[in-house]
Amino acid sequence: MEVESSHGIGGGMVRADLSKMTHPVVKRGPFSLLEPRDIEVFQALLPERVITDPDVLRASCTDWLGNCPGNSVLMLRPRTTKEVSEILRYCNERQLALTPQGGNTGLVGGSVPLFDEIIVSTSLMDEVVSFNPLSGVLVCQAGCVLERLHNYLSEHGHIMPLDLGAKGSCQIGGNVSTNAGGVRLIRYGSLRHTVLGVEAVLADGTVLDLLTTLRKDNTGYDLKQLFLGGEGTLGLVTAVALACPRMPSSQNVAFLGCQSFDAVLKTFELARHRLGETLSAFEFLDEVCMWLVNTHLALANPVTEHPFYVLVETAGSCGRHDDEKMQDFLQEAMETAHVSAGTLATDPSKVQALWSVRERITEALSRDGFTYKYDVSLPTEDIYNLVVETRRVFQGESKHIVGYGHLGDGNLHLNVTVPAHDADFKKRLEELVYGWTARCRGSVSAEHGVGTFKRHVLASTKSPVALGIMRGIKQLLDPKGILNPYKILAD
Amino acid sequence: MEVESSHGIGGGMVRADLSKMTHPVVKRGPFSLLEPRDIEVFQALLPERVITDPDVLRASCTDWLGNCPGNSVLMLRPRTTKEVSEILRYCNERQLALTPQGGNTGLVGGSVPLFDEIIVSTSLMDEVVSFNPLSGVLVCQAGCVLERLHNYLSEHGHIMPLDLGAKGSCQIGGNVSTNAGGVRLIRYGSLRHTVLGVEAVLADGTVLDLLTTLRKDNTGYDLKQLFLGGEGTLGLVTAVALACPRMPSSQNVAFLGCQSFDAVLKTFELARHRLGETLSAFEFLDEVCMWLVNTHLALANPVTEHPFYVLVETAGSCGRHDDEKMQDFLQEAMETAHVSAGTLATDPSKVQALWSVRERITEALSRDGFTYKYDVSLPTEDIYNLVVETRRVFQGESKHIVGYGHLGDGNLHLNVTVPAHDADFKKRLEELVYGWTARCRGSVSAEHGVGTFKRHVLASTKSPVALGIMRGIKQLLDPKGILNPYKILAD
Repeated sequence: MEVESSHGIGGGMVRADLSKMTHPVVKRGPFSLLEPRDIEVFQALLPERVITDPDVLRASCTDWLGNCPGNSVLMLRPRTTKEVSEILRYCNERQLALTPQGGNTGLVGGSVPLFDEIIVSTSLMDEVVSFNPLSGVLVCQAGCVLERLHNYLSEHGHIMPLDLGAKGSCQIGGNVSTNAGGVRLIRYGSLRHTVLGVEAVLADGTVLDLLTTLRKDNTGYDLKQLFLGGEGTLGLVTAVALACPRMPSSQNVAFLGCQSFDAVLKTFELARHRLGETLSAFEFLDEVCMWLVNTHLALANPVTEHPFYVLVETAGSCGRHDDEKMQDFLQEAMETAHVSAGTLATDPSKVQALWSVRERITEALSRDGFTYKYDVSLPTEDIYNLVVETRRVFQGESKHIVGYGHLGDGNLHLNVTVPAHDADFKKRLEELVYGWTARCRGSVSAEHGVGTFKRHVLASTKSPVALGIMRGIKQLLDPKGILNPYKILAD
Repeated sequence: MEVESSHGIGGGMVRADLSKMTHPVVKRGPFSLLEPRDIEVFQALLPERVITDPDVLRASCTDWLGNCPGNSVLMLRPRTTKEVSEILRYCNERQLALTPQGGNTGLVGGSVPLFDEIIVSTSLMDEVVSFNPLSGVLVCQAGCVLERLHNYLSEHGHIMPLDLGAKGSCQIGGNVSTNAGGVRLIRYGSLRHTVLGVEAVLADGTVLDLLTTLRKDNTGYDLKQLFLGGEGTLGLVTAVALACPRMPSSQNVAFLGCQSFDAVLKTFELARHRLGETLSAFEFLDEVCMWLVNTHLALANPVTEHPFYVLVETAGSCGRHDDEKMQDFLQEAMETAHVSAGTLATDPSKVQALWSVRERITEALSRDGFTYKYDVSLPTEDIYNLVVETRRVFQGESKHIVGYGHLGDGNLHLNVTVPAHDADFKKRLEELVYGWTARCRGSVSAEHGVGTFKRHVLASTKSPVALGIMRGIKQLLDPKGILNPYKILAD
């Protein structure tokens, strides 16, 4: 049987049922319907960890942005890889579709069901398996919350190479499945470099053990890369091994005001030159972002009003050297007039306060209105032109249009708030944003992934050849298509 | 028709025909035999670039170690992706097997034919397509020689993130296809992080354009990773985009003597702590390596005689700071007695002289005798135990047994020289080395790849599930198996 999806999509405080307006109508796949005997099987397998309570399920069917497109009636909470394996083996035999779910903090609808998919939550799989202080390699289950891993590692003089705003609730398995980027990518590289090993359960329940802790391993095709950014469509990630850097002994954060985007770019050039190997983050935001965090979250502007702001962080092994480098950088930035106001922090609480301005922009946007969110990669030098163009076209029809993001990685977060969702507006806005991105040979998703919300635009920047190979790999690993259906690939 | 392979394997100055002794007998695949009409087609397609001269072909059928397992009668030298596409389309239709070849510097028999495969050389595809000094992104054809790219980039204030001994002749397409590691991986990460985009021609001639220059792109399965380390079995890499770091403004190299391997490990710990973000290489070699480069290459020991030597390099953005860090590190290393002799260089010619001792070990080994080469990943703390054990068992039957490598990456190069090849010796040696590696959950190829020489041991550290998926991917992308057959996967 096939039923039509009732897509719901909302944003923060504003909710809307977009139904069939925003995306092509999705038809339910040819999966079996859940029967009482299935639930009995799961209850025997996972005593006390089979959830059918509608309130709990409603929360798990709703993502961070408030989207609740589907109506799952069952959530399973395995503790071990073996349990995951048995769940998947059974689902595959019965042709029951499922949605893996970690912290459910994603922004592209990748971790919520679209119809009646069974939710398989990794929240109880939260054990640290091992940590080797010499190699810095951490092995842990997929359900470990990122911040908990940060805290665990800091007790051992190491840090997680990944840091992002949602760290308090996102899980490492979800981070890996999304190939999450975050604010320290400029320093420590992407998860494709720092994730050394992955254990994943395939659609038919087979455990694929790629959980190596080696930094180098050139023995054929690197299969774990498929699960990095695979969004749970090729296998359910149950454990990961990560190379974790030593904790830096010093940290400096400067919050700067720039008079133009060109000055931001020049400041970045100067930072790469003067701060060199100590540079650990280079983030920017525009004046509208600052207005939003001022207004909705009562966060004070750390400097005087400017069209653009930059957060520069350094982390290093020698406090005296790092301070000197930062001072030299700031002095030259001021002298050359790239920067016209700034404040510097080394004290942890002030460092955190400066970071909050940057990290809480998403929250401020969600309080401003219904938010259209874009996460694009563009050539760094042109990154802000898209914001300018979006304002030129849509200023009159929107509440606020803002640009911020990871400048050093060429990653722009363009967000547009409106009083309420409007399908025609969204269509025209997407045409501009994704058309622009495609013309620049950019990426329609720099770090958030594809999920369900970006499937329909993938073809704008990806060739039919590439999409064909992706479909072939999906078919190879999940022939019945039970794993997180309706995600990444369009029907 | 099927013929049996006449495997030849040799090492440096000593050559031997191992024939069927070393590897399971390989049978020629069900490929067509080359006919005069095929050569006519290629001559029309590539005027003057169709090589049938037996002397030239003999050289191209012989790898750096002197192995010449096959007898190709045809080499093609395309200049453009379009030409590669037409070659592959034709070969696929005719079911003609081919071996892609770059600089042919690999150590696992991956770039030479085993039977009559057509050699497709990328040597004429050596154009730099673009370089963006702001982003540091270089786009170039696959046939660019690594050292030439180094030189090109240094004129623009940048460096290649990859550096290795064979840089004078290896090509970037081969580096990428091997996922080459090299001496700076500890600082700049693996090619999985620094290669941003790849263009590859698939078996049927389809061009797969993944040649993005973006640092971040999370739009589904990262297909380019399949070609990184794919050794030309899934597609022929024709162009790459690489993120290149800025050239450091200072470089320090210290060459140190240590009294024990434990002291080497402690020196590494100290280096990570004191040199932190400036550390760009940490290499070690044992006293036998030093004897070999002294004896065969007349390179002087930069310090007094010690059981172990360490080469530590730093690279940074502030010479004064870097010098201070290195001095502090050396002082503490001496005071704690981890290090008992050392010399320091910043002058480029002395830096190069110190590096030569490390980089020319392979050459010295090839002059010492027939060499059995192993490139394994092991837990760093235990890395040298394998050398000790190999000596314990095989000292009496061999000329020299040496250990050196990239300590910071847990990558040991274990080499054993003998007067002449002996199949039984090799079999027993491999049983020890690969058995040990498997028991440590190590990798049988840290950075050299699998090629044809390591195919038979892949199963010792890789699960049948993983090998099955690898076969499925090969089948998906190259159903007729024409691309570099007999490599990576066993029959």
